[in-house]
Amino acid sequence: MNYRMIVYLTAQIIRAVGWLLLVPLIVAAVFAERASFFAFLATAVGMILLGTLFTLKKPANKAVYTREGMAVVACAWIAVSVLGALPYVFSGDIPSLADAIFETASGLTTTGSTILNDIEGMSKACLFWRAFTHFIGGMGVLIFMLAILPQADTRTMHLVRAESAGPTAGKLVAKMSISVRILYGIYITLTMAEMLFLLFGGMPFFDAITTAFATAGTGGFSVKAGSIADYNSAYVDFIVTLFMGLFSVNFTLYYLLLSKKFMQVFKNEELRTFLGICAVSILLITGNIVPIYGSILKALRYAGFQVLTIISTAGFGTADYTEWPAFSQMILLSLMFVGGCAGSTGGGLKVMRIIVLFKSAVREVKRTLCPRAVVTVKCDGRALDKEMVRGVCNYFVVFMLLLAGSALLLSLDGHDVPTTVSAVITCMNNVGPGLNEVGPSGNFAGFSAWAKLLLSVDMLLGRLEIYPLLVLFTVRKK
Amino acid sequence: MNYRMIVYLTAQIIRAVGWLLLVPLIVAAVFAERASFFAFLATAVGMILLGTLFTLKKPANKAVYTREGMAVVACAWIAVSVLGALPYVFSGDIPSLADAIFETASGLTTTGSTILNDIEGMSKACLFWRAFTHFIGGMGVLIFMLAILPQADTRTMHLVRAESAGPTAGKLVAKMSISVRILYGIYITLTMAEMLFLLFGGMPFFDAITTAFATAGTGGFSVKAGSIADYNSAYVDFIVTLFMGLFSVNFTLYYLLLSKKFMQVFKNEELRTFLGICAVSILLITGNIVPIYGSILKALRYAGFQVLTIISTAGFGTADYTEWPAFSQMILLSLMFVGGCAGSTGGGLKVMRIIVLFKSAVREVKRTLCPRAVVTVKCDGRALDKEMVRGVCNYFVVFMLLLAGSALLLSLDGHDVPTTVSAVITCMNNVGPGLNEVGPSGNFAGFSAWAKLLLSVDMLLGRLEIYPLLVLFTVRKK
Repeated sequence: MNYRMIVYLTAQIIRAVGWLLLVPLIVAAVFAERASFFAFLATAVGMILLGTLFTLKKPANKAVYTREGMAVVACAWIAVSVLGALPYVFSGDIPSLADAIFETASGLTTTGSTILNDIEGMSKACLFWRAFTHFIGGMGVLIFMLAILPQADTRTMHLVRAESAGPTAGKLVAKMSISVRILYGIYITLTMAEMLFLLFGGMPFFDAITTAFATAGTGGFSVKAGSIADYNSAYVDFIVTLFMGLFSVNFTLYYLLLSKKFMQVFKNEELRTFLGICAVSILLITGNIVPIYGSILKALRYAGFQVLTIISTAGFGTADYTEWPAFSQMILLSLMFVGGCAGSTGGGLKVMRIIVLFKSAVREVKRTLCPRAVVTVKCDGRALDKEMVRGVCNYFVVFMLLLAGSALLLSLDGHDVPTTVSAVITCMNNVGPGLNEVGPSGNFAGFSAWAKLLLSVDMLLGRLEIYPLLVLFTVRKK
Repeated sequence: MNYRMIVYLTAQIIRAVGWLLLVPLIVAAVFAERASFFAFLATAVGMILLGTLFTLKKPANKAVYTREGMAVVACAWIAVSVLGALPYVFSGDIPSLADAIFETASGLTTTGSTILNDIEGMSKACLFWRAFTHFIGGMGVLIFMLAILPQADTRTMHLVRAESAGPTAGKLVAKMSISVRILYGIYITLTMAEMLFLLFGGMPFFDAITTAFATAGTGGFSVKAGSIADYNSAYVDFIVTLFMGLFSVNFTLYYLLLSKKFMQVFKNEELRTFLGICAVSILLITGNIVPIYGSILKALRYAGFQVLTIISTAGFGTADYTEWPAFSQMILLSLMFVGGCAGSTGGGLKVMRIIVLFKSAVREVKRTLCPRAVVTVKCDGRALDKEMVRGVCNYFVVFMLLLAGSALLLSLDGHDVPTTVSAVITCMNNVGPGLNEVGPSGNFAGFSAWAKLLLSVDMLLGRLEIYPLLVLFTVRKK
């Protein structure tokens, strides 16, 4: 392991985020929030100094392999989760450090789970920072998923590369800056578009930009206590629903659209599956909740929003689904595991993995029942690499074992079983709300400090697809 | 597919179970229960006639391959679940056919979930039949797991063969009758031993034999409304706990003991892991529930019983664990998936599969982090077959997908999420009790008829390790 290079790159990221802290600093200045202003100033200066200090001397050995790359990602994400929590603490908006770390990790991993009881009592600058962490986290994930992961020389990581034609197909080291620029261009354009649509619907500027940031990262933090429901507008619901869907789609598809390769987009199996799952879920839930809302249109509006908010793993709310029938709740609970498409800002296992798991299960059944039959797992018409399929199945096993282990540990905090299990599910899949105490009308304030840190680790595990975080525990072996 | 042979073999099994029905018939005669007597008589005569009718002419083509074997197992288990339900209906003890099928499937699959609200209001003959179905199911599973499965020419099925030295290691077609005789000898001896120990503790003969039958199959039906708790005896608790453990151990280990190969038993990794999991779980739960019971000894007694009843998937009860802290509940919920050792009458995924899943997860992590490292999955000092490891991972994926699908369907019945999910978990793992409505103090009476049939299918899926049941849906393809 090239430790010096890991420190060097992590410091670069810390410095960059330090500069980004100037944005909430400006917000604090605009709203004349004294405490927040100094909190962001102190943190920004601290992070920039820290970052600069460790980047003064570039290491002689610049070699960065998969393990180093993963370690950098893990270190940077952890460091920013901790350092980015300081403004909350310094400003007094979230006095407890554990709470502030949970909130920052939840923001950066674009989970959107909160420990806040009084959201509207926060300073504007901190509210902005919450939404902005989603935006930053979404950007981080985009590079990570589309540029860093595909370079990893292991079978498990081939998911994105194998599936996504477009700017990320080839070697990215050379084209990295171009790819990243294209990706960010799409990301920012979509975010701005949503903001404009929301402004057009009469939403205040501050709310429109923070909501757009939170949608872009499929995060789910809102500046309103009642989330999107507080705007009480079918138009706003529709726009947010639409953009949650748009941000759950593999970003390389937008590149294909820009290149006018419409057929490739139209035929994309992951996209089709994603849209199919959404459509079926919305229809089933609509039918299930019509009696509650009295009209099909209203039921459709709430079903659509809740399905998209869960499958995109944004986690906004316009209705408390824990009051819906068990069938609707079970659909939403299953969708938490599905998540967005590979190469999007959505969390969960990703639609692509679900496709592979399903097809691999069908193949296994066929193989067992007809041992002589030759069955391959195909996607987009091509046979999938065996090692990739094996990797996806193993990822699922590792994910479920970690999920079970986390739930066991978390149960020591003494919350009921549905709360405990759903808290872990929603955090590891980066969704946001769960069931019972952590349902859409509840929050994570009831957990003790260590439990919040455990859930923060779960959020990071889910967001970074497990392995980068585990690399930190194996560094000494080599 | 050799359909004639499938019918022929299924009919043989139906006829055999018809003869076994004479045992509860005798019980009905002894207790002078008129309605039950005629119910068992009619069913026994019917099953024997039906079985004889279809076995009159032996098919010319006697070839039975894996697919045929699986189809026979599935057909026989379904047929006996339906036909064996008739005495309940005819005697009027369980008037609804769906209820009766659920109860019989629960008995034969040694699950032990019940739809009965008034257990002690049942006739003695029917109570005996309930426990006897556990005993028969246990016998069926022993042949199935140790003699039929290892013959299957697929990677997934090698679990038992690969692991268990002893009478089942070689080709069994020739030695089949000897192996089965040894297995049944061990099975019946252990059952009788438990009965004697229970009699020695002052339990009435009827209770002792039914409890022993229910323990032998790791089923869990009791003739008392309050299950084992009603005997209110630390001695009885201890004996049942001990034998639940003994029946969860791979039966080939007893054969090794008889052959004086003590070291092989002592070094058996699955046994060690099973004992380790039990010990750790008991200690953790004891510590967790001491405040409730006031004394360590009492807490140990209840923790030990509940851990063994869940991991052995028997499902007896001496305490309502849903009133225990969440940590204890989460441990028990996790143990439901573990189950007994391969080659025992216990259900669940089996300890062996859990070992393989864990080691394979660790290997995957190592492989991903150090792509150049060569890591093999070892068990009992030998490297495991790659295809077997892949098969186990895939079995887990198929199992979890079916579990999720069943829970989704079952939620249409309108019970709360923990009830729905835990009902499916407990049925697919053949445990017995779940959480909330289906907790140790509840039962499955609240589900509608179709939901009970769905759960019966889940019990069969779990017991027959999925594939045999699925073969029935693919017969037309060839």
